[in-house]
Amino acid sequence: MHPIVYAEYMINKSTPTVLIYGHYDVQPPDPLDLWETDPFEPRISKNTIFARGAVDDKGQLFIILKAIETLLKTEGKLNSNLKIILEGEEECGSKSLFEFIENNKEKLKAETALACDTAMISQDKPAITISLRGIVYAELLLKGSNQDLHSGVYGGAIENPLNVLSRVIAGMHDDHLRITIPGFYDDVVEHSENERQMLAETPFNEREWLDTIGSRGTKIEDGYSIMEATTIRPSFDVHGMWGGYSGEGGKTIIPAEAGAKLSFRLVPRQQPGKIFEALKSYIETQLPDALQYKLRLLNNAEPVLIDTELPAMKSAVDALKTVFKTKPYFIRTGGSIPVVTALKKHLNIDSVLIGFGLESDGLHSPNEHLGLDRFRKGIEAVIRFFKNYPQERIN
Amino acid sequence: MHPIVYAEYMINKSTPTVLIYGHYDVQPPDPLDLWETDPFEPRISKNTIFARGAVDDKGQLFIILKAIETLLKTEGKLNSNLKIILEGEEECGSKSLFEFIENNKEKLKAETALACDTAMISQDKPAITISLRGIVYAELLLKGSNQDLHSGVYGGAIENPLNVLSRVIAGMHDDHLRITIPGFYDDVVEHSENERQMLAETPFNEREWLDTIGSRGTKIEDGYSIMEATTIRPSFDVHGMWGGYSGEGGKTIIPAEAGAKLSFRLVPRQQPGKIFEALKSYIETQLPDALQYKLRLLNNAEPVLIDTELPAMKSAVDALKTVFKTKPYFIRTGGSIPVVTALKKHLNIDSVLIGFGLESDGLHSPNEHLGLDRFRKGIEAVIRFFKNYPQERIN
Repeated sequence: MHPIVYAEYMINKSTPTVLIYGHYDVQPPDPLDLWETDPFEPRISKNTIFARGAVDDKGQLFIILKAIETLLKTEGKLNSNLKIILEGEEECGSKSLFEFIENNKEKLKAETALACDTAMISQDKPAITISLRGIVYAELLLKGSNQDLHSGVYGGAIENPLNVLSRVIAGMHDDHLRITIPGFYDDVVEHSENERQMLAETPFNEREWLDTIGSRGTKIEDGYSIMEATTIRPSFDVHGMWGGYSGEGGKTIIPAEAGAKLSFRLVPRQQPGKIFEALKSYIETQLPDALQYKLRLLNNAEPVLIDTELPAMKSAVDALKTVFKTKPYFIRTGGSIPVVTALKKHLNIDSVLIGFGLESDGLHSPNEHLGLDRFRKGIEAVIRFFKNYPQERIN
Repeated sequence: MHPIVYAEYMINKSTPTVLIYGHYDVQPPDPLDLWETDPFEPRISKNTIFARGAVDDKGQLFIILKAIETLLKTEGKLNSNLKIILEGEEECGSKSLFEFIENNKEKLKAETALACDTAMISQDKPAITISLRGIVYAELLLKGSNQDLHSGVYGGAIENPLNVLSRVIAGMHDDHLRITIPGFYDDVVEHSENERQMLAETPFNEREWLDTIGSRGTKIEDGYSIMEATTIRPSFDVHGMWGGYSGEGGKTIIPAEAGAKLSFRLVPRQQPGKIFEALKSYIETQLPDALQYKLRLLNNAEPVLIDTELPAMKSAVDALKTVFKTKPYFIRTGGSIPVVTALKKHLNIDSVLIGFGLESDGLHSPNEHLGLDRFRKGIEAVIRFFKNYPQERIN
């Protein structure tokens, strides 16, 4: 358990409050041999800082701290109250943070949250993330017999848990990559042509995108673009499967058990609880009576959509526009940032997610780095955000 | 590579020769935690010996060795020549043995082969196995990207190797549990009503059969019995699947790679080479271009059918009848014994397969065991087989 660092800057109770969020923990630096220099000895070279956490999220949370410091030094004060939460468990589930939020609802009251833990579109194209997919993450275990069986003796007469698991998983997608679970799409918000048009205008290079991950092609729900499929449409993926023998050579068994970890990414209006129930019913209808099963919900988060018309959002747009000389894009991300969901759910706080990272910065990878130009522009933008931020509460 | 142990006992060249076959290698003992005691420290408890290989096949080959030893000690001689082959690679394909057989055709000449590597019907119902299924055992590996991908960012636009693997495997069975690979059933021999009637007369208790393995039900190709489905009909099973994350909690990745081990049990006239080619073509048509794949044949064996009118078969029937006080059943087994195929193919030797195992002995599973009563009766039966065996060649 790593401590949560909490700080406050209070002008008075009637002044609007910004809650700052950041995390000081990082991903493991492995593989170490691919780092050109020590990951924990920051190195500046070619106007770029190299270090684990340069972007995710030490570097970016430092942008906010430098902005605050600068304002205090140059103006002697801020215009809003601040409540700052820096956690050390973001990369492993934020368990302590969620408890902290739930147990300190009064203390943490604020009008807006601000976090710099997301990305820009490119060096000169700023972005504000306004939508995050939710998630239902579950584990399915199947059991067919007391022990592994000889496949010669039993093959042809017994349900094989791995074959059944494959069948159940395969059955959850139809040929058009739509999820077949009854009721799954009931609450999915269909986007207007206008919104889809906006999404289509976000710069995106499919070839580059594929090359970065070493993939030879995409597979997308009929009728949608890559961008849409990964942000405004739900998805279903298996994260792990196991059962039987995976060593050298062959073992001729019908495994006693098999299991899988799987998740659904959810989009606005889908409710994790309802989706998990639908999954449960579906699995019950699909599984043969001969098998015993266990379905466990491991994690869930509601999808989030942040209103672009919020006053704080306006402050952020203006700040980025001034610094980068171009209007920021509103972008949607397919991932979940559980703290954003938690702040909304327990404290009814909307988050403003301004990020200065780039996909090419090597987040979670060797030689993670942040360009100093972006670092300085980031500080400037956050300073402007604070200056633009409404000094009166708007209800 | 494990050595082949070879020994001879030659009276003279004109005396008929029995070729003894057995294997001293065993299946891996995993999962180790389900063994009550060390799998490689034999333990005798309740008149039963527990150890990996107690039945398959160390224990059973020891039955033959003890019979030979007994005859030599009590009678000072045997009535037939012996050629003994014990191999150490039966559970992983018998590669060295097949080479040995092919390269020593003259040396290995014999009238009959004898092996104890099969089962009885029950404690007091002996059996001679006259038909074995063949096998095609393969490994399929899929690769989608250079590294595991964040399922939030990429989910919905990328082929997930685990989802695809599930789809390919699920697609190989139709709703009637028939294998969908084009051409798969082309050479399958359909059995006469008479043969099916004989099979139906073999004692079989479905409830007991299920209870032994702790399974709640069967799943069988439409129109066939359990016995038929596991002996005269081909089958398809997955033996292992892997990929992604299987530890505690959840990891939200689209795994870079996934794999499975799978096999088809074949029945008379199906040819392993042809079936593997059919599998390959099928997989090629099913896999999306975005994924790279590798399909490897790990093992194969032709199906076998042995003539019940052979003189050696008569010796075996009489031996079992004397010891167990009841006529042995001619049974068909769903497993493969590739050496039986090789002996027939290269040396034109038919095998007599007397077995003393039971399905409930836990072959290939934790706590494998052999009852000492069966062990002793087995020795007596093999002694009688040698005594009954024709002392003159019959052509």
